[in-house]
Amino acid sequence: MSRTILVHKYGGTSVGSTERLHAVADRLAQCVADGHRLVVVVSAMGSTTDQLVQLAQSMRVTDVPEAFQSASSREYDQLVATGEIVSASLLAMAVHARGCSAVSLTGGQAGIKTEMMYSRAKILGVDLTRIHQELASHSVVIVTGFQGVNKRNDVTTIGRGGSDTSAVVLAAALNVAVCDIYTDVDGVYTSDPRSIRGVSKLPMVSYDDMLELASLGARVLHPRAVECAKINGIELHVRSSFSNESGTRVKEIGMEVQQPVTGVTVNEDEVLFALRGLPDIPGIAAQVFGALAAANISVDMIVQSTQDKGTNTITFTVSQSDTQSAKAIAVSISDSLKGVSVIEHTQIAKVSVVGVGMISRPGVAATVFDVLGKAGMNIHLISTSEIKISCAIDRDQGGAAAQLLHDAFQLDQL
Amino acid sequence: MSRTILVHKYGGTSVGSTERLHAVADRLAQCVADGHRLVVVVSAMGSTTDQLVQLAQSMRVTDVPEAFQSASSREYDQLVATGEIVSASLLAMAVHARGCSAVSLTGGQAGIKTEMMYSRAKILGVDLTRIHQELASHSVVIVTGFQGVNKRNDVTTIGRGGSDTSAVVLAAALNVAVCDIYTDVDGVYTSDPRSIRGVSKLPMVSYDDMLELASLGARVLHPRAVECAKINGIELHVRSSFSNESGTRVKEIGMEVQQPVTGVTVNEDEVLFALRGLPDIPGIAAQVFGALAAANISVDMIVQSTQDKGTNTITFTVSQSDTQSAKAIAVSISDSLKGVSVIEHTQIAKVSVVGVGMISRPGVAATVFDVLGKAGMNIHLISTSEIKISCAIDRDQGGAAAQLLHDAFQLDQL
Repeated sequence: MSRTILVHKYGGTSVGSTERLHAVADRLAQCVADGHRLVVVVSAMGSTTDQLVQLAQSMRVTDVPEAFQSASSREYDQLVATGEIVSASLLAMAVHARGCSAVSLTGGQAGIKTEMMYSRAKILGVDLTRIHQELASHSVVIVTGFQGVNKRNDVTTIGRGGSDTSAVVLAAALNVAVCDIYTDVDGVYTSDPRSIRGVSKLPMVSYDDMLELASLGARVLHPRAVECAKINGIELHVRSSFSNESGTRVKEIGMEVQQPVTGVTVNEDEVLFALRGLPDIPGIAAQVFGALAAANISVDMIVQSTQDKGTNTITFTVSQSDTQSAKAIAVSISDSLKGVSVIEHTQIAKVSVVGVGMISRPGVAATVFDVLGKAGMNIHLISTSEIKISCAIDRDQGGAAAQLLHDAFQLDQL
Repeated sequence: MSRTILVHKYGGTSVGSTERLHAVADRLAQCVADGHRLVVVVSAMGSTTDQLVQLAQSMRVTDVPEAFQSASSREYDQLVATGEIVSASLLAMAVHARGCSAVSLTGGQAGIKTEMMYSRAKILGVDLTRIHQELASHSVVIVTGFQGVNKRNDVTTIGRGGSDTSAVVLAAALNVAVCDIYTDVDGVYTSDPRSIRGVSKLPMVSYDDMLELASLGARVLHPRAVECAKINGIELHVRSSFSNESGTRVKEIGMEVQQPVTGVTVNEDEVLFALRGLPDIPGIAAQVFGALAAANISVDMIVQSTQDKGTNTITFTVSQSDTQSAKAIAVSISDSLKGVSVIEHTQIAKVSVVGVGMISRPGVAATVFDVLGKAGMNIHLISTSEIKISCAIDRDQGGAAAQLLHDAFQLDQL
């Protein structure tokens, strides 16, 4: 019997209690009984990582002199990486209790090599020696997600939500076609089931649509993992660890895309700033976004438009948590340039319509503006890409707008 | 300036909260300011290890089929070793916050090599390469106690209380003469201050006396660490992490021992079994203790006496937790031999008088029996070594007996 390798990933909720760990162990034992070999990536149990982060904060990590900040990042990674070691070793014990061989491997033991940097290191490669040894001795191999080691043999973490990426990287290294992402939802939906009526579960979704859906707030899959899966041609199967139902398959979808729109998302975490009356000279945009980048502020939507008298308006949105620092930068730029004013709009919602299919189906943008216009919703900002149309509107209209768009594109009938 | 290396060890209570970690970091920063280099061994915070053990138990580790028990021990070690990683990395951050360089090293990173076996591996040696590198770059080196790695690069633990041993092994490898053991008491006392009046703190104590005091329940130092210190000639300074006072120095004490008795201890955790009417033939004792050893039961006191008609009585004590399994073994032996009966005495206390000085001062045993006899206390079992006299008496008389002996040897006037 040829024993195929399966790669599973279980998120924090799926291993969030000893009961949940036992449920996962049941599933793994069944897969072993079915004749499969298993490589399993786990996150830390429930809120463990947050607790460890809190402990670190009580050590005054924010007071650390600059000279020791990199050293403290190293300690931070060494600390938070223990969360996944705990869940992985517990899960291995639970598998033993079911009469199956299993071993937990830290990122280092599993051969996951990363850059030197801490807290958001990129994975450079995987030395599969140990994993192949353990698979050959019929062990379920349980790997701690979210971490690796650098060339100094120090523990590094690869950024939050990184366990998805760990799983995809292992699937790619092991030449496995599909990676099962077990989570607390049963798939990817056309919109947020908690706020939109009539949502449909997508049986499959393209990498590109999933990337847009993930970064817009669907929170099911880390965008980096989707990108990594796309590059390596790994199919992701997003499914529930609480059932045996099929979930959503994230994969390359050919030319025969059925529907123009795959999903509608709402993001209520952004604030909008506009700089009006900027001189129309080269380098102005670079000055604005250079200053924001230097302050480590991620900018989402960016729009520049020309006004009368040869001046420009630059409008952008940032996360609510960056409101104060972004405002300070906007004000200092406006102070340094004559006739420039800052407009702030903190109560916006960004409603987005996503779909690879819209490339070949004109009229999606027109439908979006038509729907919002007929509902009397004022659009403050529009930003479009080939597969996405986003509109910033008043925050209190976000949910209603998403529902109207979801209905208009008949996403309940997928 | 020649910078001496200090080796400190901090126990679970000394790093039991973020406040305590800050207090330890203050002390370390002061040592750095005083021009010392530091290698610091830490235990897990407070009850962390117990919590991890509880988690492991909820994984049904007791149900694990025999074939996977060694594999589960490996997971158990991987799990509990995270406790020290957490305290070590947090302490390093707290040192950074004080503007000092520091690095936490796991047992593996610190080069602590152990046997292959799990849960009670012996340390085979220390590869100091990384520690020397870190000391050369002026870092406070914080090493996780209680753990190392085997030649497979898997995490091993060296048995509970093993952090003391980790510290002594590092002191020996680094050729440091004194190892400071910071704990929640300020030294070694002539008896337990919680139950005996007039106890004195011993300014110094011999390795041998400390060994007897430690294994009898003084709980300040792990006996294995004392033995390791004795073999390597490391002086241990047992002191409080809550003050700057000098504690008790455990070291080789020459011929000029002042007092015959150093301490009095009480152990109320033992139960007594006697096998009466055993045939006086070779191999009987081996049969009894072989069966106990096979069941992994540690035996403390052992006494054999000859009775009439050529039969023997073998009496022994074991930990309360081993009562059921020891009883089963005693009963099965008595069932297999004609005329043998089992006597069980679960309510005993073992009172011990310890002192290297008694070797050269006859009469200590006589005083012990005289004191207990005059107080009307019945002695069930006597066991003596060159430096210790232990008596098993009724448990409810344990405390009173210890007080009488403490008074009789004038240990309050040390």
